Amino acid sequence: MNPRLPDALSAWSQALGAAYVSTDPAALLGAGRATFPTCQRVAAIIRPANTVQVQACLRIATAHAVAVHPVSRGRNWGLGSRVPTVDGAVLLDLGRMDRIVSVDEDLACITVEPGVTFRQVHAHLRDSGSRLFAAVTGGAADASLIGNALERGDGVGPYRNRADSAGALEVVLPTGERLETALGRWPEAAAASLHRAGLGPALDGLFLQSSLGVVTRMSFWLAPRPAFLQVFMLKLQGLEALSQVLDACRTLVQSGALGEAGFTFWNHIKRVAREAPYPWAHTAGRTPLQPHERQPLAWYASGAHYAASRPLGLAARELVCSALQPWAEVTVFDSDSHGTALEDSLFMGVPSDANVASAYWRKRTPPSQPDRNPDRDGCGVLFVCPVLPLRGPVVTALLPELEDLIQRHGFEPNIGMHIEAGRTLLAYIALMYDRDVPGEDPRALACHDALLALLLARGHYPFRLAHPAQSRLPEPCDDSAAVMARLKRAFDPAGVLSPGHYAFGQALPSVLAAGAAAVLPLTTPAP
Amino acid sequence: MNPRLPDALSAWSQALGAAYVSTDPAALLGAGRATFPTCQRVAAIIRPANTVQVQACLRIATAHAVAVHPVSRGRNWGLGSRVPTVDGAVLLDLGRMDRIVSVDEDLACITVEPGVTFRQVHAHLRDSGSRLFAAVTGGAADASLIGNALERGDGVGPYRNRADSAGALEVVLPTGERLETALGRWPEAAAASLHRAGLGPALDGLFLQSSLGVVTRMSFWLAPRPAFLQVFMLKLQGLEALSQVLDACRTLVQSGALGEAGFTFWNHIKRVAREAPYPWAHTAGRTPLQPHERQPLAWYASGAHYAASRPLGLAARELVCSALQPWAEVTVFDSDSHGTALEDSLFMGVPSDANVASAYWRKRTPPSQPDRNPDRDGCGVLFVCPVLPLRGPVVTALLPELEDLIQRHGFEPNIGMHIEAGRTLLAYIALMYDRDVPGEDPRALACHDALLALLLARGHYPFRLAHPAQSRLPEPCDDSAAVMARLKRAFDPAGVLSPGHYAFGQALPSVLAAGAAAVLPLTTPAP
Repeated sequence: MNPRLPDALSAWSQALGAAYVSTDPAALLGAGRATFPTCQRVAAIIRPANTVQVQACLRIATAHAVAVHPVSRGRNWGLGSRVPTVDGAVLLDLGRMDRIVSVDEDLACITVEPGVTFRQVHAHLRDSGSRLFAAVTGGAADASLIGNALERGDGVGPYRNRADSAGALEVVLPTGERLETALGRWPEAAAASLHRAGLGPALDGLFLQSSLGVVTRMSFWLAPRPAFLQVFMLKLQGLEALSQVLDACRTLVQSGALGEAGFTFWNHIKRVAREAPYPWAHTAGRTPLQPHERQPLAWYASGAHYAASRPLGLAARELVCSALQPWAEVTVFDSDSHGTALEDSLFMGVPSDANVASAYWRKRTPPSQPDRNPDRDGCGVLFVCPVLPLRGPVVTALLPELEDLIQRHGFEPNIGMHIEAGRTLLAYIALMYDRDVPGEDPRALACHDALLALLLARGHYPFRLAHPAQSRLPEPCDDSAAVMARLKRAFDPAGVLSPGHYAFGQALPSVLAAGAAAVLPLTTPAP
Repeated sequence: MNPRLPDALSAWSQALGAAYVSTDPAALLGAGRATFPTCQRVAAIIRPANTVQVQACLRIATAHAVAVHPVSRGRNWGLGSRVPTVDGAVLLDLGRMDRIVSVDEDLACITVEPGVTFRQVHAHLRDSGSRLFAAVTGGAADASLIGNALERGDGVGPYRNRADSAGALEVVLPTGERLETALGRWPEAAAASLHRAGLGPALDGLFLQSSLGVVTRMSFWLAPRPAFLQVFMLKLQGLEALSQVLDACRTLVQSGALGEAGFTFWNHIKRVAREAPYPWAHTAGRTPLQPHERQPLAWYASGAHYAASRPLGLAARELVCSALQPWAEVTVFDSDSHGTALEDSLFMGVPSDANVASAYWRKRTPPSQPDRNPDRDGCGVLFVCPVLPLRGPVVTALLPELEDLIQRHGFEPNIGMHIEAGRTLLAYIALMYDRDVPGEDPRALACHDALLALLLARGHYPFRLAHPAQSRLPEPCDDSAAVMARLKRAFDPAGVLSPGHYAFGQALPSVLAAGAAAVLPLTTPAP
């Protein structure tokens, strides 16, 4: 234990009230648990109520040189959940800061604190009769908008790239200093939340995927409810079709025909893992499914078009169908034919835990409690997230290599990909397993590392990192490691904020290396 | 003179060759000249040929503590041209770095060096038969893409917000260190230029409107030539109509009906200053025009829609016309009716110096040379650039105040505004005058300061700063001044790069204050 922790705890108790400083062993144990192996112990949980208290918390952490790790709602499942980056850190839980600060109906902007969830925003806008909605995550309904944005999580619908669809941030540095990233740094600025660029060097990017500051308030664009919504559902077979569809979608997105919402792709395993339990009876308890059992050539995609009028929607449909129908079955759901169903869907900002079901896919025993909590329930989920250039042939040459590697490690390839900006694919490769099966945890870590190594060898770098990936990137070939180290010192002189989080190129505590280092058998025995 | 300059000059001569280090008095005098009064003397001009030479130049500057100021093409007319921020600085002229590094036809991306101009990119894409075009600036055809983006200049067409439509930057720090802002920091990254966010804290924003580094390479999105282009030209009369049109355009842009290109507004003076000389005969030599001589209630706007098909274009037209026709005369030019004219226009990425003509509007004597160079020709141009919330009533309440103030200082209100992101207006208020008329320079500075003060008092902060505005902003009410000072030290330990450039809140050399400080008469005598 950090010898200075007791003094820090007593200072935090004074600043927040003793009720908001917890060292309850069960709570600490839970906070250290993710959907893959971790060995970091959480020293305490502190829960500030507002920005001033966050400033006090961070000043105390810096003064006592105690590491702290902020979480908003802690639903970073598959990438690290709430677990701090280093052993012995204190969890800075921002869940009490759950105010929707403002909604601007004209300028289509919402300002929230870190504890505000997708569910809460949806209910607020619905209950106030707003003309606006917020793009939701494909993940948990009770995830934080700010947490999702800061980790560069993706979503569904207009402004799905939440990190890029934001106005302004309020940030507290480890020194206790408070920053406004845009014009809000000046008094009474009329466009404080509306002009992200602000004036002068833009600081907002520094606080994404970062250990430089704690974001305590953020503004996001909202979208008006469309006059006409249509969702294109694609079904396609084979890598040649996938390649052609990817290239055709690239052309469609670049042309602006569909607005910015773009297309999402997923393979057959990703589909079935959401919809049904693992076919235990069929395999007589064996994992993984063999290639012939998982339809490796079946791919699906959806693309939503938010149209300002029905004729605009129908004109876009003509383009989409003629570009894609040679290669895919295209089914269209629209406001006319399926208005109510669409109205209640992710596409209209209604959050859902449906995707969380896939975390339970390979669980051999059903969860003991009705709510879904993959951390608690021993669900194994571990993501590898490469960004790929949006070229059909590049993607389809890579997929069989990835699938083969995953299969050899005893897992099924569970793959989703979004088109971003008409130029890249953001891919989510999920390893889904049962942490209660002996051997699966280390096998998943080994598979993660092998996948990452394969991707790096092909030049495909990640856009998000799970804990085990944080220390696995090569040295940069520019001078960014030295510059990032100076930046860290300028913002966090005592080095107390989430040490090692997205801090590649710096010396890292390698608490996570142990599990993955052992040489593991590459076939899974039937249990 | 900085006593260490001679040593620095000899080191630069060794690094670059003597031919690329100039202390020619005429060249230095020209480099210190802008479109408003400046008193900074330029100590030398150095011209590196590549990134390695830029690194050498900056290492030498840091070692000898000599201030340097980078310019790409130096066409920052109305805001400071090429003139360094402080007296005695050395101009780092990047014009020799004029390579188009690559064009990716599939992924619609161009990578350029700082000396590459809009004219050059247009010719390159045209001559190679590209399906793509680059959004151009409304300013000079020989301006630099990178220079324009780094100052957050605006443009025309898709990706008009060039700073936000960029992939990756290569940057050299004053220390000589080299940074890649996105995935290019790792070897052989397949999406090096394509995924701006990169991984971990994003550094790119730090180098916009900045004195933290010199950008030596940058990638920009290109747009595919549209299947159908239409341009809506609006003419409207009176503040109530303007207010209604602004609000209607807000709704149209937020709905996505028009893609991202948005609408640009300009008043009658901005129109006539482009199209014809000042009516000297009519006013018998008097300035400024009186309100009844300048149609203060006439406003114009244009909005371009880049459609992937003609039906899509016509469906959007229906929405635009029905929303705006109650308040404005709407004329539509499209690919069918005016294809050739549109093909040769700014809207299709063909750069033009047409707007530069307005810099000569109030010149009493025609320029002696055929090419347009407002710095050389004594054109007075000084911009004030506030960002306004996109609310018709807010904007139309402000305009009469601004116009009245400008009129009282002896100038005509020359105002343009773009809609950005459906939430703000970026306004360009230009003071256009003749620097050869005694008294006009100080009067323009006084008017600039008074305009800025009025805007700040109303909460409307600028999004770009002319030199005289750099030291005129109030203290931030957060801790950003201290943080920015630490950032500056971390990137530029000797403080040699463009001291004072967008460095509000820090102690600044106030070389510019002298001209504006005197109390000036607010009426202009006829000459």
